[in-house]
Amino acid sequence: MTQKQNGQSRVVIEDVRPQVDGGEFPIKRVVGQSVAVEANIFADGHDVVVAVVRYRSERDAEWSEVAMTPLVNDEWEAEFFVGEEGVYCYTVQAWIDRFKTWHRDLHKRAIANQVTRVDLTIGAELLEAAATKVTGSEAERLTHWGRRLRQPDAIAHIEQICDDSELSLLMDRHAPRDFATTYQRELRVTVDRVRAGFSAWYECFPRSCADSPGKHGTLKDVESRLPYVAAMGFDVLYLPPIHPVGTQFRKGKNNAEEAQEGDVGSPWGIGAAEGGHKSIHPQLGTMDDFKHLLLAAREHGIEIAMDIAFQCAPDHPYVKAHPQWFRQRPDGTIQYAENPPKKYQDIYPFDFETPDWEALWDELKSIFDFWIEQGVRIFRVDNPHTKPFPFWQWCIAEIKREHPDVLFLAEAFTRPKITSRLAKLGFSQSYTYFAWRNTKEELTEYVTELTQTALREHFRPNFWPNTPDILTEYLQFGGRPAFMARLVLAATLSPNYGIYGPPFEHCWTAPAKPGSEEYLDSEKYQVHFHDLKRPDRLNEFIARVNDLRREYGVLQSNDNVVFHDIDNEQMICYSKVSADLSEILLIVVNLDPHHRQAGWIELPLAELKLDQSQPYQVHDLLSDERFLWHGERNFVELDPSTVPAHIFQVRRRVRTERDFEYYL
Amino acid sequence: MTQKQNGQSRVVIEDVRPQVDGGEFPIKRVVGQSVAVEANIFADGHDVVVAVVRYRSERDAEWSEVAMTPLVNDEWEAEFFVGEEGVYCYTVQAWIDRFKTWHRDLHKRAIANQVTRVDLTIGAELLEAAATKVTGSEAERLTHWGRRLRQPDAIAHIEQICDDSELSLLMDRHAPRDFATTYQRELRVTVDRVRAGFSAWYECFPRSCADSPGKHGTLKDVESRLPYVAAMGFDVLYLPPIHPVGTQFRKGKNNAEEAQEGDVGSPWGIGAAEGGHKSIHPQLGTMDDFKHLLLAAREHGIEIAMDIAFQCAPDHPYVKAHPQWFRQRPDGTIQYAENPPKKYQDIYPFDFETPDWEALWDELKSIFDFWIEQGVRIFRVDNPHTKPFPFWQWCIAEIKREHPDVLFLAEAFTRPKITSRLAKLGFSQSYTYFAWRNTKEELTEYVTELTQTALREHFRPNFWPNTPDILTEYLQFGGRPAFMARLVLAATLSPNYGIYGPPFEHCWTAPAKPGSEEYLDSEKYQVHFHDLKRPDRLNEFIARVNDLRREYGVLQSNDNVVFHDIDNEQMICYSKVSADLSEILLIVVNLDPHHRQAGWIELPLAELKLDQSQPYQVHDLLSDERFLWHGERNFVELDPSTVPAHIFQVRRRVRTERDFEYYL
Repeated sequence: MTQKQNGQSRVVIEDVRPQVDGGEFPIKRVVGQSVAVEANIFADGHDVVVAVVRYRSERDAEWSEVAMTPLVNDEWEAEFFVGEEGVYCYTVQAWIDRFKTWHRDLHKRAIANQVTRVDLTIGAELLEAAATKVTGSEAERLTHWGRRLRQPDAIAHIEQICDDSELSLLMDRHAPRDFATTYQRELRVTVDRVRAGFSAWYECFPRSCADSPGKHGTLKDVESRLPYVAAMGFDVLYLPPIHPVGTQFRKGKNNAEEAQEGDVGSPWGIGAAEGGHKSIHPQLGTMDDFKHLLLAAREHGIEIAMDIAFQCAPDHPYVKAHPQWFRQRPDGTIQYAENPPKKYQDIYPFDFETPDWEALWDELKSIFDFWIEQGVRIFRVDNPHTKPFPFWQWCIAEIKREHPDVLFLAEAFTRPKITSRLAKLGFSQSYTYFAWRNTKEELTEYVTELTQTALREHFRPNFWPNTPDILTEYLQFGGRPAFMARLVLAATLSPNYGIYGPPFEHCWTAPAKPGSEEYLDSEKYQVHFHDLKRPDRLNEFIARVNDLRREYGVLQSNDNVVFHDIDNEQMICYSKVSADLSEILLIVVNLDPHHRQAGWIELPLAELKLDQSQPYQVHDLLSDERFLWHGERNFVELDPSTVPAHIFQVRRRVRTERDFEYYL
Repeated sequence: MTQKQNGQSRVVIEDVRPQVDGGEFPIKRVVGQSVAVEANIFADGHDVVVAVVRYRSERDAEWSEVAMTPLVNDEWEAEFFVGEEGVYCYTVQAWIDRFKTWHRDLHKRAIANQVTRVDLTIGAELLEAAATKVTGSEAERLTHWGRRLRQPDAIAHIEQICDDSELSLLMDRHAPRDFATTYQRELRVTVDRVRAGFSAWYECFPRSCADSPGKHGTLKDVESRLPYVAAMGFDVLYLPPIHPVGTQFRKGKNNAEEAQEGDVGSPWGIGAAEGGHKSIHPQLGTMDDFKHLLLAAREHGIEIAMDIAFQCAPDHPYVKAHPQWFRQRPDGTIQYAENPPKKYQDIYPFDFETPDWEALWDELKSIFDFWIEQGVRIFRVDNPHTKPFPFWQWCIAEIKREHPDVLFLAEAFTRPKITSRLAKLGFSQSYTYFAWRNTKEELTEYVTELTQTALREHFRPNFWPNTPDILTEYLQFGGRPAFMARLVLAATLSPNYGIYGPPFEHCWTAPAKPGSEEYLDSEKYQVHFHDLKRPDRLNEFIARVNDLRREYGVLQSNDNVVFHDIDNEQMICYSKVSADLSEILLIVVNLDPHHRQAGWIELPLAELKLDQSQPYQVHDLLSDERFLWHGERNFVELDPSTVPAHIFQVRRRVRTERDFEYYL
């Protein structure tokens, strides 16, 4: 037997958006952003419907409300702002407003000279009913209006009554919400601090930070490196694992199967006699050094991001202490990582199907807790897609419940639905396929997918042109101009981006072997000394681009990229424009690192509110050159041997004199 | 505290489709159709995932299963058939198959000559574990295979073992589903009888069915009219309300405000002293007459569809018996229907906000029950969008639970989201905007929306070129060619369609006044005598089109329309093709009722598997003309003064001789 339900609730609320997977997962925002809520709302018949968005921080018991506005086709919208970190809830409520219905009809009757005493009595009853639920002066005013409607001469004053704003305002506040419909789900927003949505990352190996060749770098050396990183304008310094490195089956230089005497091994081969995930490699320093680094970084406006790689070297203390967390083979050995026929005997993965999984989860979460305790607030998680999804959902929710300021970057270079899932489960940012999107078509399609589809609500992209694992062929063959082009693309197409240096600013192009994306003499397996004063370094160029990102708000947001036509396949052109058009940046990049390229750009002047008949100025914020443009089509030429990109500020003409002084 | 959940369940199932509003509402199918289920399915890591669709009729406790196949990008699919009326449930289950993972890796190891005894022992353990859950010969075979893997010489025979299909088949059946993930929702399918998806409706007023002028027709006259309706090929005969007609405020001819002596009133003004929604108008006949009509219709392959209009004339017995079901005004009168300044004093709407709503719901449902008891199985519901949505959801579910063969057509000419909602709530078919879609662009866009968007899963369109309320300007000005064109469009673009006759087959074109879509001397307010032998009648043309609908399966389905380019805005061209390409219909319509039009059609021969280099035959099933076509572009000309449409059967060449005898 189907139950009779909500028989008198006549309003339907459908398809409240944004929502992720039917509300199973929260959308994401940063503090100060807004959530524009839309829904389909309608009722049977012709009565007047009223709707509100209800929202609250999970910490508040009280709901706030904002009135929704009907658009077209029964679609309504309202916007609310999220002011503090944590989780917000939102839903929609709607009801039939009998007073508004009566008021609308009264107006129509008045025009047709059809108002009767009965019509006014119906209105008076509505006001008097509302008055019984109110106290004080408003109750008096409602009663007053009720009396007025019952007066014999009310019909003569009907137009005045119809138009009186006091009556409408009183009833906006006090008309009863009889039989209101509330959307069946409470949707959620994860509100992160601003850095979740706008950050510039720099990755470097601490052991390669020594100030002279032949030395193993330390955390103190990293501290000395802070001014260098800050000068380039980065605000997150991400360190590969700083834990003791395993010795059994340790890899040698260039991933050689056997390490030689003195080889330092991969920092991702975590754990040795000296300790595991909660310990610091003795050659890097002490916990005090680390805490000191955290504080020193903060003084440079930099946060330290820590690497979390949930896997163990064979000599990790966990292996002896908790053998049940690893898969045992029938011969009593532990199953190492493999992808037949490849074997990774230096790595033991955790067995998440272990009957002891709950204890394993607790221990892994305690690793985050331990470093949070030391002061870390950003974690870059290595290969999260090789650990079960339910673990991340639980672990991140638990951590953010206590520490909503903690951020997680998912390093999952895997299939698209999996990267999206990890973002749904709580990762604050995600590595992307940006490194492999190099042509105009690839970049346009990919950025459009990230910023214009459902992904935009939960997936915050982080664009890396290189990483210790990824030296793309574009960079190998393109050299310095390719590095400059990719930097501009990463830094302006995505508010979150990062580079792996010094190989990036020094334009390292040598692969381990032809066709490989591994670096030759990769820092993953050996210590390097970097000459920070190399004459061909890109540091100043990088610093300029990061300056612009801080100066121009449009570069701090992910939802405002618009691509423009340019009649050269080797050139890409896009704008980032503020909602009020006060900031218009136009970025043009020559994607061909080998040849000078030129083309005609087509701009939608009407949308930008630029006068078709007047010239306007474009000011290249990289070179400080200024050009006078006119009309929708303008010519651009870029020489990769100098700078392969323009970052134009488009300046609107404000006076008629043709003098640069007179532009805004 | 977030609970640790499903820690060992590593497979994720996302976005199972089709589903309507996150599974809140069922999708629709008819008996014998299939449901193609897709889902995103993936796990952490590289283990082999296996997935099934589980489905059952709500009457069965047992689930059936069908294996899913991975497509691309972690999307999987499987199809199941629905064999009986009622409700089916479906969901998806997936798990990691340790045997398949082992087997895949063993194969890779074998190729690399890396198989060890330990690898084989791991496999043996998997087989032995499976054997413990099975009995009989299969247990023996599993044990046998386990022993074989443990034999010292197994490595030598490893390729044989890898390739043996018995082992794989045994484990397909018996590998354990440890830690399986089941999709969190059970989705539903409403399975209707075939007529819900394929029907040709004929509407006529019983009181206009008399065999001579000046007489009030009866149900017996309708019975005499059955051969006429059957000869045109219709299978649903829909009658406007057959209840006593109210006398208070009765409308006169042409909707005059006051009825004259002898005016019969609108059949939708239901209820008078003689009875209400469960009574038959005395001038139409008796309940026995009605039941006889139902049986007689069945013998002609016709079903009677009854009109349900939930509203009352002021003299309806409900008004006195249940005054609480209507809205009382302060002066003691009952609120009539109005849309200020318009008043409909002949109609009292029910007040669904009444505190007595549950009794009202029960009574309204009992009206359906009453007519179901008499033998009716199809209801055309008048203006369902002016009654609350929760009522329909409850009422239709309750009725279909007992009588899954009952069908409901929603007459809701209102906004799109509302018509869609009513279909979600359970209406089997829906009136559409077809009457107002007359240009090529309008028709293409509308049919694409109905058949290619989410609507297709729950909204079954019914195309009506005219109704007693709708005589479009296209018909008024286009005359006979317009009626023919609209008939072909309705009957071939939608498997469900209907006409209101005899005004349709007699091509009535006179509106009540210029600019109105009401008929002059509308049958809604007066009795007509129809001369069924009018020489210009379209009966034979209609009969031919309905014959083709029965003969060609592609016209009985809603998901196979493809539009083709034709270089004339006044002509539209589309095909309906069976999945196996055995049936190819190509329909061309001249939308201009005034002028001969011609154009070049462009056909995708490769998709239709038609040979580019050979001529092929198109056979017009309306005129019986045959044309030899060649290549992708072919010429068509249509003269509205004869027949404004072709319904071509495209015949594939099977021999090389150019003789029509040799075409299929």
